Amino acid sequence: MTKPNIDSPIVVVIGGGFGGVAAVQALAKAPVNVVLIDKENHHLFQPLLYQVATSVLPTSNIAFPIRRIFRKQANAYVFNDEVVSIDCAACRITFSNKRSARFDYLILAAGANSSYFGNDQWAPFAPGMKTLDDAMIIRNKILRAFEDAEAETNPVALREHLTFIVVGGGATGVELAGAIKELGVDSISKDYRRFNAKNARVILIEAGDRLLPSMSESSSHAALKALEKIGVEIRLKQSVTHVDETGVVVNGETIRANTIVWSAGVKASSLGASLGAKLDRNGRVLVEPDCSVMGAPNVFVIGDMASMKCSKTGHAVPGVAPAATQMGQFVAKIIAHEVRAGVRKTTSNAPNTTSNVNTTNSAQIMERGKFEYFDKGSMATIGRAKAVAEVAGLKFHGLIAWLAWLFVHLILLVGFNNRILVFMSWAISYITFSKGSRIISGNPPSRVVAPVGSDAGDSAADRRKAVEELLMRM
Amino acid sequence: MTKPNIDSPIVVVIGGGFGGVAAVQALAKAPVNVVLIDKENHHLFQPLLYQVATSVLPTSNIAFPIRRIFRKQANAYVFNDEVVSIDCAACRITFSNKRSARFDYLILAAGANSSYFGNDQWAPFAPGMKTLDDAMIIRNKILRAFEDAEAETNPVALREHLTFIVVGGGATGVELAGAIKELGVDSISKDYRRFNAKNARVILIEAGDRLLPSMSESSSHAALKALEKIGVEIRLKQSVTHVDETGVVVNGETIRANTIVWSAGVKASSLGASLGAKLDRNGRVLVEPDCSVMGAPNVFVIGDMASMKCSKTGHAVPGVAPAATQMGQFVAKIIAHEVRAGVRKTTSNAPNTTSNVNTTNSAQIMERGKFEYFDKGSMATIGRAKAVAEVAGLKFHGLIAWLAWLFVHLILLVGFNNRILVFMSWAISYITFSKGSRIISGNPPSRVVAPVGSDAGDSAADRRKAVEELLMRM
Repeated sequence: MTKPNIDSPIVVVIGGGFGGVAAVQALAKAPVNVVLIDKENHHLFQPLLYQVATSVLPTSNIAFPIRRIFRKQANAYVFNDEVVSIDCAACRITFSNKRSARFDYLILAAGANSSYFGNDQWAPFAPGMKTLDDAMIIRNKILRAFEDAEAETNPVALREHLTFIVVGGGATGVELAGAIKELGVDSISKDYRRFNAKNARVILIEAGDRLLPSMSESSSHAALKALEKIGVEIRLKQSVTHVDETGVVVNGETIRANTIVWSAGVKASSLGASLGAKLDRNGRVLVEPDCSVMGAPNVFVIGDMASMKCSKTGHAVPGVAPAATQMGQFVAKIIAHEVRAGVRKTTSNAPNTTSNVNTTNSAQIMERGKFEYFDKGSMATIGRAKAVAEVAGLKFHGLIAWLAWLFVHLILLVGFNNRILVFMSWAISYITFSKGSRIISGNPPSRVVAPVGSDAGDSAADRRKAVEELLMRM
Repeated sequence: MTKPNIDSPIVVVIGGGFGGVAAVQALAKAPVNVVLIDKENHHLFQPLLYQVATSVLPTSNIAFPIRRIFRKQANAYVFNDEVVSIDCAACRITFSNKRSARFDYLILAAGANSSYFGNDQWAPFAPGMKTLDDAMIIRNKILRAFEDAEAETNPVALREHLTFIVVGGGATGVELAGAIKELGVDSISKDYRRFNAKNARVILIEAGDRLLPSMSESSSHAALKALEKIGVEIRLKQSVTHVDETGVVVNGETIRANTIVWSAGVKASSLGASLGAKLDRNGRVLVEPDCSVMGAPNVFVIGDMASMKCSKTGHAVPGVAPAATQMGQFVAKIIAHEVRAGVRKTTSNAPNTTSNVNTTNSAQIMERGKFEYFDKGSMATIGRAKAVAEVAGLKFHGLIAWLAWLFVHLILLVGFNNRILVFMSWAISYITFSKGSRIISGNPPSRVVAPVGSDAGDSAADRRKAVEELLMRM
């Protein structure tokens, strides 16, 4: 391992997601000082976020302290802070406290947030699912809905408590809808006396004509059938035109629901805008074939923030973890090579004039090469022992796909401890049908209905009615 | 198991802590309908709360959905709601939404909150540790302090980030102080580059003349020695007279610290005040020897809310989990007996005049008996493989006490799953010296110092200084 050297160039990496972490790891042996900055203290294993939202896993199982990952990487420094702007020309970043710092190379990997397509006012009623806090908000909402249902005496309101709407039929939406239904059917229905949680209505709304649009049509179909079989109501080719605290309007129809989750779209971190580069309509930076920003060859944008077409297929590189990881490794290799080759001088103050010309020329691309995305396949799970997977042109459905999904996700999880604990949680959940993290936290109860009896008078009939109301199962 | 019968009396239990849960469980075979109401959805294993605050355990390991506990108890109903007042004469409780409900018997077991002895303005700066949310706030503060220290360039401010003050030397304070020190020494010191977490200063302040005042002097001494050995600074006979965002004033001395935790005192839930009974200075209800409220024999107060002297020793029954559990079982037995014996009629609307007389007479106590607290012993852990324990007059220190502590806490944890997961977390933590739940959540970063470099100019010397500052280990 390379010892940190004060005269080595500084590579700043913004964002500790899959792309940022891969880049820092790939720079372990390079003669550079790597500074990773993230506004959270943890790397988040986003593919399992829906399991936190549905009480299967505790938050700490899918979140890992970023600095723990780089404990043994002597040239890596981790800071828990927020970068608010980037000045490519001056090679400086500015923090939220207005102080700034220089870089020799910058890797921008700040990821994406939920996008409401211009309707940000929907956000409070239909939280997205991108961060750990998002998942906890959704978990609270789902568990609170069942608690409120138990206390409800009005059948109309009861139906609203037990209606869960998931907007967006990509992998996150499909997995979340399946997991919510499963939570009601398998895990908690015996815990409630006054309603049947198996009757909870889970509605998955997708504007396109099929679920999992990034997978094949046969996988889409298999996912649809599997979800329908467990009782999820699927609405394809339907658009949500309004969201408020009472529910959604979809294709002109009002559906009242207390729980709405948004997984319909993402937009890139707003940091991309401060680069002065061209953005696509989702706020992603249109990067050069080497992932650099046009005119700033020492600034790279990777992962969900980068907009790029595969040079072979012509398709857009998808916003998935493997793409981010591959980009991180690709740009780390370029940087390591250039620093070793002395392309970029390290002790000068000003940006090295050799590489910091204000155009991206074909010679640069020739030398660095073009990023090629290698599609390892994709998969989505749909509840207990069901999944769809596509690997190397092969398609798997059902149990085999689910086992593959389990295996791949366990392998990819950062940290030995997390793997053991997640495996234990899954084993317990699978065997006992119970979910280990059904905890409402950080939210005081606020409710509208009386839980026991009513304000009825004290006549024997009234009292009997109150007791009946209390005890009667629906 | 007794089937729920609509004509059986309603026993309302307020609070799903140790006392409330024990009472409901002990009523499983009684011909009553039991309604347990708690404002949280989970039973909290408070003795391990300090392990959540210090990142050892995830929140869900020590919290268990209350209704899950009673899944198979057909006469038990759980509602997640908040009771705001009690009318003993009318036998009614009122919820936060102003609706109300009747009871035949009431068991009030709403526990206690942190007490600042009239200085509630200190609460925001020195959070107490009673709820899961409290523990998460403290965890965030502790982890944030280390993150801020890594970014700090001012040595005075660095010292403030690395100063942790625990006020109160009871079991919670002792365990927390030991665990914070251990977190810095064993678990995270290798994760930071710019300061040595082993130098974190942990100060435990106790107004009395010894730690663990409820245990023997030799245990107090052993705890003190063990804490001093791992480097905790202990201040006995010192009182905190001021707390604000910068630190505390203790015996006239100002200690600046960014993290202050309050474990100096508790006050009973304010619900006791609505009973109209006499309260002690900590807000606890002065109960009759049968745990009932004077003048309301069908209303019992148990656990941390009850003020009672042991009839044998004359000492106050302590506010600990075993006392609450025993009280819950004791009053459940009284209620079951009286209902079976027909002392309390069930179908009448008005309170039964036989037992609801407005005085507590000696005949009532004669018939019901007096609550006797059986002291099973007490224990406190002080970091890795060290503890003090007193059981049946015997005193243990060190490893044996620690093993006993581990064993007892695992046995007492509610739920088979939690036991496995906690054991796994402990084993991993013990073997690897790492803590699995070092997650800051629900708090955006807000900081005052620049993490990398400075606003210095671009001269070679300035830049070198910025890099040095970044890389230099302290």
